Amino acid sequence: MKFTMKQLLFVLFLGSMIIGCKSVRNTSSENNFAIAIHGGAGAILKQNMTPELEMEYKITLELAIKTGHEILKNGGTSVEAVQKTIVILEDSPLFNAGKGAVFTNEGKNELDASIMDGATLKAGAVAGVTTVKNPILLANAIMTQSPHVLLTQRGAETFAKEQGLEIVDPSYFYTEKSFKALERAKKSETEKNHKFGTVGCVALDKYGNLAAGTSTGGMTNKRWNRVGDSPIIGAGTYANNNSCAVSATGWGEFFIRSVVGHDIAALVEYKKMKLQEATKTVINKVEKLGGDGGVIAIDKIGNISFAFNTSGMYRASIDKKGNLYVGIYKE
Amino acid sequence: MKFTMKQLLFVLFLGSMIIGCKSVRNTSSENNFAIAIHGGAGAILKQNMTPELEMEYKITLELAIKTGHEILKNGGTSVEAVQKTIVILEDSPLFNAGKGAVFTNEGKNELDASIMDGATLKAGAVAGVTTVKNPILLANAIMTQSPHVLLTQRGAETFAKEQGLEIVDPSYFYTEKSFKALERAKKSETEKNHKFGTVGCVALDKYGNLAAGTSTGGMTNKRWNRVGDSPIIGAGTYANNNSCAVSATGWGEFFIRSVVGHDIAALVEYKKMKLQEATKTVINKVEKLGGDGGVIAIDKIGNISFAFNTSGMYRASIDKKGNLYVGIYKE
Repeated sequence: MKFTMKQLLFVLFLGSMIIGCKSVRNTSSENNFAIAIHGGAGAILKQNMTPELEMEYKITLELAIKTGHEILKNGGTSVEAVQKTIVILEDSPLFNAGKGAVFTNEGKNELDASIMDGATLKAGAVAGVTTVKNPILLANAIMTQSPHVLLTQRGAETFAKEQGLEIVDPSYFYTEKSFKALERAKKSETEKNHKFGTVGCVALDKYGNLAAGTSTGGMTNKRWNRVGDSPIIGAGTYANNNSCAVSATGWGEFFIRSVVGHDIAALVEYKKMKLQEATKTVINKVEKLGGDGGVIAIDKIGNISFAFNTSGMYRASIDKKGNLYVGIYKE
Repeated sequence: MKFTMKQLLFVLFLGSMIIGCKSVRNTSSENNFAIAIHGGAGAILKQNMTPELEMEYKITLELAIKTGHEILKNGGTSVEAVQKTIVILEDSPLFNAGKGAVFTNEGKNELDASIMDGATLKAGAVAGVTTVKNPILLANAIMTQSPHVLLTQRGAETFAKEQGLEIVDPSYFYTEKSFKALERAKKSETEKNHKFGTVGCVALDKYGNLAAGTSTGGMTNKRWNRVGDSPIIGAGTYANNNSCAVSATGWGEFFIRSVVGHDIAALVEYKKMKLQEATKTVINKVEKLGGDGGVIAIDKIGNISFAFNTSGMYRASIDKKGNLYVGIYKE
């Protein structure tokens, strides 16, 4: 049996229509929103983990990511999803943020957080507060209710009170786990805590807007009112609708020096790098300087990337197809 | 025979003019080092300036830039030149940094500074100190003598004492000019001070290494322990041997959101933009967001760029040919 060129082209055309229709059908079932979170990167090894603790981490990560996803699904903004997702992680004692914040050398809990709106490039950040239950909500209030980006310490707490945010006694942040970590750190006289537990969230909403947020208790045994990368816009947190949204976790000093969040965005926007390549490139730069940690990122079309050079990073995502992913160790 | 300070300054100015002419003669042999400074951008208008005050500004800018240039000429590093140049600007009551720092809403002077070494990407920064005479020296001590990048407030002051840096009584920072500015700001109830006086320096040394530093008293009438872009690595200060060194001055919130320093460097490194185009592009971005201010930048081959969207920026440079330039208003 022979076919004319016209017949062949017709069959080809029909075939492409069917494939085309199928891909349209797939597209229609694909959402245009997605979300990812981290609960810190560090020396997280399976052999040091009990099955119960591992389950606790996974359940909390899943609860948080599903909460954020539900907000996006119901038409909430990425800024709203980032905030409410991070509140769940801050309220959990498992992570080094909010309730579970680590102790400073003086036995205090000094909290930092930041948030950025990729649509407007508005941002809010707070460093060194000791009485604000949810620093991410304070960062958001600074972004939306003040002319400033970064407020610190007592001044930031005064602003938090003026805004009616929940204030707690510093003892609220006591957890046995964090206090023991301080005792261990003091004994070994190391400034560095090899298990970072900073939390963060990046999201793309139905309206095509990106947002990122990060919250932390900083480093166990920190001194001199040290501030890491979490409240630094461009380092620990960055979001820009032209490129991507990023939240980082790790050895903050190296993340500040590498301007991690903005560098990933610049590689995506200026070098047209794919998100996954950009996050890997920047984590490699951090590693070359001697630092470690990780990032989560989401770009303007909803691609999600996790990159870290530690043995683990608590993380979760729900992508555009609605697929849930929860991970702890390197894969 | 006695001389007034003004007469002395005038003689110094005349003398420096002669030296300046000499340095222009050296044009044929090009150096491989160069330096630029700013003393703040803002609403600086010739009609509001007396000839005496204009001369004072020019003399101080010239003294500072020549000090830095001399260090580079004698084989000093860019980090050293940046520090010592900024110390001169901090010690002058003319600028909003060190001695001349503006007052907060509470009638305090809270100082911020940062420095970055483009060769190693090491950086040091300090926010909210009230008793450290030269915050740029503290930023440098944090960079070189601590494992940290950013220290704040009382903790940073403790570290400064441990490092043997000069501590002064907070009253040292009182100037009539700054105190009157606070009174005016309180009357007009504006958060924004239209004349920013942040100081900064960028330099390229004989060894091909870039450095940048910035120092400020922040915004007149600031509240809630607000921190601007000056101590934020990537925003107010950035240096990277792969691209350029940048120091910014202006409405800090917009400079943080625009990650000004790193964005200029990223345009140079990733988009292969010329330095002048990159600085203009980023100042345009700041303007689009509603902000104003300026930057100085120097690239790895010694090109110098000034860019600002205000009516003036105190600035000076000595380029690779040894040409001295001092400017105040838009040209």
